Amino acid sequence: MIEALQVMPGIGPVSATRIAYYLLDRKRTEGLLMTKAVDEALSNISLCPICRNYTDVENEPCQLCSNARRKEKHSICVVETPSDVMAIEASASYQGNYFVLHGHLSPLDGIGPHELGLEYLKDRLSQERIEEVIIATSHTVEGDVTASYIASMVKKFDIRVSRIATGVPLGGELGSVDGNTLALSLNYRRDM
Amino acid sequence: MIEALQVMPGIGPVSATRIAYYLLDRKRTEGLLMTKAVDEALSNISLCPICRNYTDVENEPCQLCSNARRKEKHSICVVETPSDVMAIEASASYQGNYFVLHGHLSPLDGIGPHELGLEYLKDRLSQERIEEVIIATSHTVEGDVTASYIASMVKKFDIRVSRIATGVPLGGELGSVDGNTLALSLNYRRDM
Repeated sequence: MIEALQVMPGIGPVSATRIAYYLLDRKRTEGLLMTKAVDEALSNISLCPICRNYTDVENEPCQLCSNARRKEKHSICVVETPSDVMAIEASASYQGNYFVLHGHLSPLDGIGPHELGLEYLKDRLSQERIEEVIIATSHTVEGDVTASYIASMVKKFDIRVSRIATGVPLGGELGSVDGNTLALSLNYRRDM
Repeated sequence: MIEALQVMPGIGPVSATRIAYYLLDRKRTEGLLMTKAVDEALSNISLCPICRNYTDVENEPCQLCSNARRKEKHSICVVETPSDVMAIEASASYQGNYFVLHGHLSPLDGIGPHELGLEYLKDRLSQERIEEVIIATSHTVEGDVTASYIASMVKKFDIRVSRIATGVPLGGELGSVDGNTLALSLNYRRDM
């Protein structure tokens, strides 16, 4: 049991031993409920065939993709991870559909367009009526490269492509923002 | 001495006592150098008559304002505090001139356009050849109000007015950005 627990990230021999004794001593029923929940999730959660976000096997396509109101927006927001979808949904600022890359282009690690499922995105661009693709990859070197690649792909379909704004976050003092972000926020200043 | 030290923010009776004994016991010469430096600064630093940033009495106008190359940019960046000037200078992304408000509009605290020295900014707009005013007030309610007020003032002179970009900072994951910033970054998305 101690060895098996170490499959989890951040759990080494010491934590694994502590967890094992804790569950055995005091939380046997809760431990069994936990294994059941993890078991079900690992066996039943797959990728939505449309947006490639995680979804139940029974819920295919996922809830967001089957929502007719979202389809009416005719827009796709491209993100790197399922947790990005959660963050955008939590901000309640976007009503369209998503596409989850599960990573970013990184040729050295063998991650190319195929690994990100970009052929599925291409299929959607040619088959659905999409009016805008909003790219929300992170502002890192890899995220920038991924954004450029997708942008040139989308432009071939004559569809508007945009990227979420880079700049100073709300509430912050200028001194608490890193210099590069500050430089970009001056660069991307908007007319008032 | 202990009572006098408490004029500094964050220094109560306990810290003041500790500082007093420390300086008396071990750092008498350093302490005297410190008082001399603070003394000089408090007596000699005034506001630059052009940008209202801090400057030596002997250096009027300040180094940034007397730099001819900066004047050639014909732009003024409006910030709330002198430390904002330092942050922007550290990012090496702006070569124009500044105007420091030393605060933001806050009518309830009695801070109006006059307290921010906006009549000096007005004078500059009418007398210098300014092509753009870049507003870099913070993204708070007061910062937004101040930005709008200055924007409408600048527009009367038929000068371009812009504000630094709001959005997701560089390198960050979407999940680590607050929801309102994320919402604005979607709103202010830029075409690629």
